[in-house]
Parts: sequence; C-alpha cells; structure tokens
Amino acid sequence: MSEPAGDFGLIGLAVMGQNLILNINDHGYTVVAYNRTVSKVDHFLANEAKGTNIIGAKSIEDLASKLKRPRKIMLLVKAGSAVDDFIEQIIPHLDQGDIIIDGGNSHFPDTIRRCKYLEDKGFLFIGCGVSGGEDGARYGPSLMPGGSKAAWEHVKPIFQSIAAKANDEPCCDWVGETGAGHYVKMVHNGIEYGDMQLICEAYHLMKEGLDLTHDEIGDVFENWNKGELDSFLIDITKDIVRFKDEDGSPLVEKIKDTAGQKGTGKWTAISSLDLGIPVTLIGEAVYSRTLSALKDERVRASKILPGPKNKKFKGDKQVFIKQLGQALYASKLISYAQGFMLMREAAKDNDWDLNNAGIALMWRGGCIIRSAFLGDIKNAYTKNPKLENLLFDPFFKKAIDDAQDSWRQVVAEAAILGIPAPALSTALSFYDGYRHEKLPANLLQAQRDYFGAHTFRYLDEYVDEKHPKDKDVHVNWTGHGGNVSSSAYLA
Amino acid sequence: MSEPAGDFGLIGLAVMGQNLILNINDHGYTVVAYNRTVSKVDHFLANEAKGTNIIGAKSIEDLASKLKRPRKIMLLVKAGSAVDDFIEQIIPHLDQGDIIIDGGNSHFPDTIRRCKYLEDKGFLFIGCGVSGGEDGARYGPSLMPGGSKAAWEHVKPIFQSIAAKANDEPCCDWVGETGAGHYVKMVHNGIEYGDMQLICEAYHLMKEGLDLTHDEIGDVFENWNKGELDSFLIDITKDIVRFKDEDGSPLVEKIKDTAGQKGTGKWTAISSLDLGIPVTLIGEAVYSRTLSALKDERVRASKILPGPKNKKFKGDKQVFIKQLGQALYASKLISYAQGFMLMREAAKDNDWDLNNAGIALMWRGGCIIRSAFLGDIKNAYTKNPKLENLLFDPFFKKAIDDAQDSWRQVVAEAAILGIPAPALSTALSFYDGYRHEKLPANLLQAQRDYFGAHTFRYLDEYVDEKHPKDKDVHVNWTGHGGNVSSSAYLA
Repeated sequence: MSEPAGDFGLIGLAVMGQNLILNINDHGYTVVAYNRTVSKVDHFLANEAKGTNIIGAKSIEDLASKLKRPRKIMLLVKAGSAVDDFIEQIIPHLDQGDIIIDGGNSHFPDTIRRCKYLEDKGFLFIGCGVSGGEDGARYGPSLMPGGSKAAWEHVKPIFQSIAAKANDEPCCDWVGETGAGHYVKMVHNGIEYGDMQLICEAYHLMKEGLDLTHDEIGDVFENWNKGELDSFLIDITKDIVRFKDEDGSPLVEKIKDTAGQKGTGKWTAISSLDLGIPVTLIGEAVYSRTLSALKDERVRASKILPGPKNKKFKGDKQVFIKQLGQALYASKLISYAQGFMLMREAAKDNDWDLNNAGIALMWRGGCIIRSAFLGDIKNAYTKNPKLENLLFDPFFKKAIDDAQDSWRQVVAEAAILGIPAPALSTALSFYDGYRHEKLPANLLQAQRDYFGAHTFRYLDEYVDEKHPKDKDVHVNWTGHGGNVSSSAYLA
Repeated sequence: MSEPAGDFGLIGLAVMGQNLILNINDHGYTVVAYNRTVSKVDHFLANEAKGTNIIGAKSIEDLASKLKRPRKIMLLVKAGSAVDDFIEQIIPHLDQGDIIIDGGNSHFPDTIRRCKYLEDKGFLFIGCGVSGGEDGARYGPSLMPGGSKAAWEHVKPIFQSIAAKANDEPCCDWVGETGAGHYVKMVHNGIEYGDMQLICEAYHLMKEGLDLTHDEIGDVFENWNKGELDSFLIDITKDIVRFKDEDGSPLVEKIKDTAGQKGTGKWTAISSLDLGIPVTLIGEAVYSRTLSALKDERVRASKILPGPKNKKFKGDKQVFIKQLGQALYASKLISYAQGFMLMREAAKDNDWDLNNAGIALMWRGGCIIRSAFLGDIKNAYTKNPKLENLLFDPFFKKAIDDAQDSWRQVVAEAAILGIPAPALSTALSFYDGYRHEKLPANLLQAQRDYFGAHTFRYLDEYVDEKHPKDKDVHVNWTGHGGNVSSSAYLA
C-alpha cells in the first residue's frame, strides 16, 4: 500500500464544503473529500473538482486511510447531532494526536463538550468559525479556530493560506481554548444580524419615508460605500436594490419579507441575557426577524391598526439622507461595542484569553461583516489592548459625538413617521443609558423592596455609619407588613 | 396515635412562606409548618404564629404524619436543586395520590420534568405561580396553579379562599397541564419587569427632562393612578417618590441604581427568542437591568461620552406630562399584547389549553401587576375568546390610536433630549412593525441569498408559473460563484 497523499480531509459537500475544498486545493494541498451520500463525491469529482488534485473517499475508513498523520479532518455538516454522529464514526479510524475540525455553526457549549471529550481520548479538536458565505469559502474566508491549542501548529499553514487577507495579513488566527472559536463566530453572526437589520431600517426609511426609487436608494448605498460605511454588506445592498427581474422591475420588491432566525443570532442574544450584558441591538435584530416571520398576522394587523396621520417626510431629503448615514454609522459602532462587551464577559466566564485586535483582524476581511470600520477597531485595540470599551477610544468617541445630532433626528423622525426603526432606536437608548452615571434603577430597587422586601443599597455618596457601603437595606415603606427581608426572589 | 389534624403542609419559612401560612390559617385551615433549619419553626410559632392553629413539624416525616390524606405539601424554597432535594426527601413519606406543590419561581422546564416524574410514581404535582410579594402572600396573593389536573379539586377550596379577589372572583384558577402554571407566572414576572421599566423611564423623563421635584413626580403618579393607568405599581411609585429619609430628603434619590436580573424576566426573554415571538419590551427591560448593573463602567463612561448639546425640554411641561401618560399606557398595552402572543405560542408548543380571560383575571388582583387595565383585558377575552391579538380588540385599538400621537412625541423627545427610553421606544417600533404588511425583510432575504445562497420566496402577488407559491428561489446575483443553493445555514 502506498503512502497516504492527503493533507486535509473534508466531510460534507454542500456549497460551503465544495468551495472550501477547491480553495484548499488552489493553495497546493491535497484534499480528500467525503460525503454521506457518496454519489455526491463522484459528482463533485466529475464536475467542480475536475482537473484538480482532489481525491474522493468512499467511506470514513477510506478517508482516514488516505490522510497523512496527524490527520486533519474537517466537518462541514449541519450543526447538531450530525456532528456528534460523524465524530463517533471517525474515532475508530484515528490515531492519537489526530485532529477533528468542526467548521459548522455549532453552538459553543457543544464545542466545549466535544473538545473535552476528544482530548480525554487523546485526540485534538478544533471548533472553527467559517464566514464569508459561498464566495468567501471559495476565494478566502474568515476563519476563527479555537479548541485544542496543540492542533494549531498543524492547521495554521493551511488555514492562513486559504483565509482572506486584509493588508496582506491573513484573516485567521488562534482565538482561544475550548469553545472560543465558535463563540467568536457566534458573536460575528449576531453582529451580522445587527448590521443587516440596520441596513434594512435605512432602506425602509428611504423607501417609505422619502419615497426614493430603488435606483436612487442604490445610489445612496453606493455613496455610503465610499466613506466610513465602506463594507461588504453595504456594497452588496447597492447591487441588490438595483438588480432587475426579467420584467425590468427591482427584484427585491418581489421578495417575501419573512426572515428565518433559528440560529446563531438567537444564541448570541440568549448568551447576552445569560451573561447579563445589554447586547440590545442584536436582540432587536433577532426580534425583527421573528416579527417579519409573522407575515400572515401582520397582513391582518395592517388592515386593522392605524398609523400616524402624517406619514410623509417634510424636510430636506438630502439632509436626511446624510443624517441617516450618520445614524447608521453610530448605531453600528454601538453594536460592535456591545459585541466586544459580550466577548469580554464570555472570556471571563470561560477563562479564555481573547485578543480583541486579533478578532477585529479576523473579521476585517473574508467574512460577511468585513469592512473598513473593522480596520479602525483593530487600530483601537492595537493602540490600547486594555481598552475597556470601544466607545472610549478617542477616534470612536469623536465619531459618535459628530454623529449624535443626526442620529437623534433620525430616531425621532422614524417615530413620528411611523416607520419601525428598532435597531437604530435601541442603539441610541443604549448610548444614552451607558453614558448616564445614574439610571432610574434606583426607583426599580425601591419598588422591589416595597413589594418583595428585596432590599437595596445606598449610593456611595450617601454612605455613613448608619448606612455602610454595600449593606443591604430594607425599609418598611407601608408601615404594615413584616420586617423580614426576602432570602429568595419570589416576587 | 390520634388522627392527623393538618389540612396543608408548607416547607420554607422565609417571608413568603410565613405569610402564606398565616393567610391559610386565617381561612380556617390547619397548616403544618416545616423548615430545614428547625429553629426557625420554633421562632415562628413563638412569634408571628403565636395564638394561631398552626402546627410545627420537626422533620419531613413528622410533617407527613401530621397531614390528612391526600397530603398537600407546598414547597416555598429557592428555585433549583433545593426543590428536587426536598421532593426526594418527601417521596418516602407519601402515599399514592398525595400532592406536592411547588410555590417557588421554578423554571417551567423543571416543572414539566417534575410533574412527569411524580405522576410516574403515582403522586400528583402542582407547579404554582405565587405573586403579590409579602403583602400579597399575607392578605391575598394571585395564584397560578398548573400540573396534575387531578390535584386541582383537592387544593381548589384552599387556594381560592386565600387568593385575592377581584370583584368577588378569586384571582386563582386552573391554568393548564404540566408546566403551564409556572410558565404563566414567568410571563407575569416578565411583564412586571416591563411595567417597572416603563415607570422608571417615565420617572427619568420627568426628573431629568422636565426638572420636576420628587413631590411633583408623586403628584403625577397619583393623578395617573386615578385613570386608565390605575395599578398597584403606579400606586406604590407615588408613595416611593414621596417617601422621605430621616433627613427629610427623598429616600429614592439615595438608592443605588443597580438592579439584579437573573430570574424570571430573563427566562421570559429567552423563551420568546426560542419560540420566535418578538417580546421586545420585556427584552429591553431585562437588558436595562443588566445595563444598570454595570454601574462602575457607567460612571467611567459618564465622564468620557458626551450627550446632546441641548438637554432641557423647551415645550409645555403639562402637555408633555399628559403625552407621557399616554405613551406609558400605549407601551404597556404593547407589552401585554406581546406577553399574550408568547403564551399563545407556548401553549401551541406544549399542548396546553390556556384560557386568556382566566389568566387576565388571575393577574387582575393580588399580584404585582394588578391593575384596572387587566379588567379591560379580561373583558376583551371574555367577549371574544378567539381574539387573535389584544390589539385587535376594538377598545384597545381605539385606545392605542388615541394615544399614538402623544406616544410618538414622547419617544422623539427622549431621543432628542438624550434620556434613555428603550422600553417606550421598542414598544412603538413593535407597533409600527406589527401594523406593516411589508417589512424590509425582503432586502434581508436578498442579502442572505446573495452571500449564502439561502434562497428566498416570491410574494404571493408575484406568484406565476415560473415562480410558484412557496418555491425556494436562488438567484446568481454576482454572475460568478456557484448555482448550488445552501442546505444548511453556514453564513
């Protein structure tokens, strides 16, 4: 039997898998391809992979036998039980030190579990975020690998060669232990939800509020794409709104306005609730998708529920478009600041050592949220790796200050016109809440103590002998009822 | 040995447990009280329970021996493993058909699990939401029991006698199977989070935007409490803002503005994300608590991040206060509509037969969110039990239409003044999104198809032979890249 020729194995020949294989092949590595429905392998070899060095495998055993050691086997299959099933099928064919890579959108707790499970058996595991869609996979994705650190040196040359490049730097670096790679990818996707929602709100305001045509809207996005909003999503939006169906009308107008949501955006929102970090923009973006999905109910509601009397914008459209660009930019900045706050908390919670500048670089190119803006974020964290919050960076602080008047006008105008702008609005609410030394939660704490004896604390400036710092106080607000304070929240 | 005298057993002598016991005793039932730290039982009997018919128990065995059959044993202990621990301790002392009641804030999936577990062993289980805080427990709580239907006839007389009454009807009825009681209680608490947040935002706008004194704010709440906002929370807020510390200044101003959140509000938000229902107001209320908890970071942010140049309201304060009341009312209506949407979906998901009018009645009195408004909700669902959405009821439809101009002004003003109003704003965004037949998710679907080949559908009005109804369409937007559509979301 001859020496195995394969540098890298890949299981799962959906569009992402096929394109990643072709990409790896382009960079001089020999890939062994396998798919559960084996006819897909033959079809791939006879078509997309024709004339390449790509090798097909007829079974997992065959795949393993064709790979050099340590074997590197990447799964690009549906997240969930399929990943566990394949891991179990692969294990019998592995040697100690071999590496399984999960390139799907697995939920990070699963990745943490699988990493421990495989390491306990003497294997290595990488949970790797892959972003960039089909084009990214083919021509340079963003890759976010985390898990068994010992595996990194073996996959690094391959991953960094196939990854997108931003100013010659690969958009791929080691993220951290256990589930860190999939966590960061999850937050990436959550931010993607937010970016898309913000663009949708801007589109909606221009279409319904300003009565712009789709071509005019395309011009606005094209113009925005030349400035600080320069990004993949703005760029494709320009193309999308201009794209004509066969009858010459904008295709986008014919597309059903119902979006799915059961994925990584939802997980990001849930994780933010679990960790207690106000990632409000992603939360609203996920909720907006769920609202869009209630299409039939909305159609009925639209026939019943009245809007405002005056629904048309009366000011200067060009001025408003400029303000809208500023509102979009400021809101986007808030969303990224919230995302990095979440990763900061998750790192603390999971004992990961995350590198913020590295994350910004990984997102700078290749992935769906790639943008010039992420270069600015990388600069902020490179200049000050200990930066507590993105908003504290002088560049961004000035940017948001410059934008805030426009932003406030846009949020106010949307409320008056009756055009929903939940993401633009929540971003502003967050900014105003975050910069308030005192929020009205003092009243909330008083209410909780009033009805549930939940106690409260005095503000530091009112601390004295009677009210020491961090002492839990209960007041008998009503004059009746007990003086027993509650030991469990039973409101 | 004499016949057991106890009608009802209760474990857990924190404030809620003590007060519930005293309440049940007041209604002529003999309660047996037990606590893990047995000295608490003796203390309770010698003090709060002195001169009553309440009996103490020294152990679980002792408790069980003192109860008539079928035994009814209620747990009022910290939600989580303590409930399971007590259940295991109780089981050996039970006979078939005996009833365990969990009156804590247990998470509904735990209640579903425990119900099945105990029913499989031949026992009955009730997961019962209890609301009303310490006063409610003592003088009439709202009770939301669900679980083993066969247990209901045994506890019904006790529960309905001790529950609060609204127009002579007890605020307690059977909610549904398995975890329905705790689910409805969870949503109640989520709505409570929302109501409290809305009140806090109104307070903040009056304090910072209008520069009202706390006594003036108390007058506004007192006035609101005479109209459609008539409710327990508005009522106690009036008292709270007027409450003076020993030095004569408003106590509420000295209270630290950091609120906890790891509870039922968070669960409600997570459940809404899981079920895909846009319960945005509770989501923002939970996030607002988490933002309040980042006190130290906010203090630093407040010294760095600038607000708007003009921070003071320039209009007519009395007009604005009226508008604010309308905004509060409309937002509250949205929150309840969202809550009932969530329960509708949960009922579908869990096969519960929930009675909306009954739920509104249970919340009408006794509990923290009790209000005149819940009487209107009960009326709406009584008139039309099949009402698809609360907003479709003619009374509420008119109410929101009457309020909407004011509501829009308040949200716009908050944005301009730089005072965070996330709950008031998200409620308006939801209303405007919900009443839109077409949302901009068409663009979002186009983006997803562009970068990830995720496909989209044509709107019904554009369906033709080439584009049949509900057919998934993929367009090659770029002219390059594959024509393979994605089978898994790997964006």
